[in-house]
Amino acid sequence: MSSLYSNQLTYAILGTGALGGYYGACLQRAGKEVHFLLHSDYDRVKEHGLVIESAGDDFALPQVHAYDSASTMPKCDVVVVALKTTQNHLLPQLLPPVVKDDGVVLVLQNGLGIEQEVAQIVGNYQVMGGLCFLCSNKVGAGHIRHLDYKEIKLGEYTPNYQPGGISERMQSIGADFEKAGIPIQLSADLLLARWQKLVWNIPYNGLSVILNATTSALMADINTLALIKELMNEVVTGAKTCDRLISDSFIDEMLNHTAKMKPYRTSMKIDYDEKRVLEVEAIFGNPLRMVQEKGIQLPRIATLYQQLKFLDAKNRIKNKD
Amino acid sequence: MSSLYSNQLTYAILGTGALGGYYGACLQRAGKEVHFLLHSDYDRVKEHGLVIESAGDDFALPQVHAYDSASTMPKCDVVVVALKTTQNHLLPQLLPPVVKDDGVVLVLQNGLGIEQEVAQIVGNYQVMGGLCFLCSNKVGAGHIRHLDYKEIKLGEYTPNYQPGGISERMQSIGADFEKAGIPIQLSADLLLARWQKLVWNIPYNGLSVILNATTSALMADINTLALIKELMNEVVTGAKTCDRLISDSFIDEMLNHTAKMKPYRTSMKIDYDEKRVLEVEAIFGNPLRMVQEKGIQLPRIATLYQQLKFLDAKNRIKNKD
Repeated sequence: MSSLYSNQLTYAILGTGALGGYYGACLQRAGKEVHFLLHSDYDRVKEHGLVIESAGDDFALPQVHAYDSASTMPKCDVVVVALKTTQNHLLPQLLPPVVKDDGVVLVLQNGLGIEQEVAQIVGNYQVMGGLCFLCSNKVGAGHIRHLDYKEIKLGEYTPNYQPGGISERMQSIGADFEKAGIPIQLSADLLLARWQKLVWNIPYNGLSVILNATTSALMADINTLALIKELMNEVVTGAKTCDRLISDSFIDEMLNHTAKMKPYRTSMKIDYDEKRVLEVEAIFGNPLRMVQEKGIQLPRIATLYQQLKFLDAKNRIKNKD
Repeated sequence: MSSLYSNQLTYAILGTGALGGYYGACLQRAGKEVHFLLHSDYDRVKEHGLVIESAGDDFALPQVHAYDSASTMPKCDVVVVALKTTQNHLLPQLLPPVVKDDGVVLVLQNGLGIEQEVAQIVGNYQVMGGLCFLCSNKVGAGHIRHLDYKEIKLGEYTPNYQPGGISERMQSIGADFEKAGIPIQLSADLLLARWQKLVWNIPYNGLSVILNATTSALMADINTLALIKELMNEVVTGAKTCDRLISDSFIDEMLNHTAKMKPYRTSMKIDYDEKRVLEVEAIFGNPLRMVQEKGIQLPRIATLYQQLKFLDAKNRIKNKD
């Protein structure tokens, strides 16, 4: 991975939407070579590039390297997976043509267990995970509105999610993002970071869809607040099953932080309202299966999983009308 | 309770709605003396009586004994509690004036633990429970549409729900209902009968509201079907905590029966759609508390309880708009 150390990394963005489009555009603006894979927005972006709206920091990239097929892209040092997890069945076709032999796939997706799937395609030592704390929407073809937050937490993937430490390539990639204005945290333990993020994602994403509610409505009701805490405790139990400890103070911090947020429509609720497929398997199904393999049940999370699967299926049917 | 054995029982109906109005009208048509307590429909019913629609068996009672206050009613042998459980805070005022010294209160309500509350008002040996398998709606003041089923299962209440056996007064009251065309089952163990009914009520009432679905939609989806079975198993666990055994074949029968039913909107879903207060405490809260006292958790049922409390509260607020 010589090119990593020369700090002349090239980037491929698989999925140029609210997340991939935003981060890729920031990297290109900072001088990096970035190649964007697009689907429905390809024609528009090839001709007019990308437009980013962000309070006090709007910018446009009139020209970008746009592709409508991974097979026509150059091999890159860092391949950013920025698709929704519901598109991950495409990865066995998309990844091999675009990852350099000594490159790395950076999975910027929600949920658990995705790095393991990617490792089966590109090999154990070519995968890194990233947890995005980002609030952005795609408002049109090649037009992204960044609303709040943008930090990424990076972690190395190693076989069976053993803690991977802080690698040099993490630091190189992190430095590129930092130069692009994206705050970066480096995590020595990707699996711990993933479980920690589920402490928020499982209760709020799940209940916001099932109960048609914002985060603040869920926090204001004594019954859903109790349920949120119980769901968080089940996530902690799940993490413990994988030998990862999440402290009570971490939960308190999540609750306090969320209580102070403005009424927030979660990403899963936005997907549901837009009649997009929900990321139920990545966020709920994979953690449940990882824990069930060790003989542990998380009944409240399992209840949410089954409810969401039902609602998602109904949402598909209605979409066809 | 001399009058019971002479078979000249008099009846009071507290709550002349879809359920109380129907059963009371059937009893009056069969020659029984029935006194009806009404609230908003009092003027109309006092003047025009009751109208019952029932496929092939419509009838009208142009004159009934109608009251708008329990204190003006005569004391009766059998006082039928046919209110929604959400009105039960009224019972300490309603019951004492209308129950004969040797009379009995027959609780025809859903859920668990109500007889215990009634016993605190009228005494342990003046309470009986009845489980109604009835599908009827009130379509106007004094106008009830009976749709399907009508059977009642009667059981004696005894302190702490010890099995009460088959008493003579159960048989007398049962005979009156049978003469009125209502099939009666006599149960020697009221608490077992109540838990058995929860096997159906908890999953279908709960999920129909939370997921906005009919019974057939819930049965047709592999995920909700699995959740229904798990909820039923938690009810069985709850019953076991109270030393009541519910067999696997009972669950299979419930599932098969429901799978064969036409798409059915549950009574809780109808209440929710009509923006009426939901019977969450009687059907979910009381069983959970009864079991928690013995140190047992039913996490899936608890999850539904908390979700329903949230939805019910939101439904109230919207109602005020």
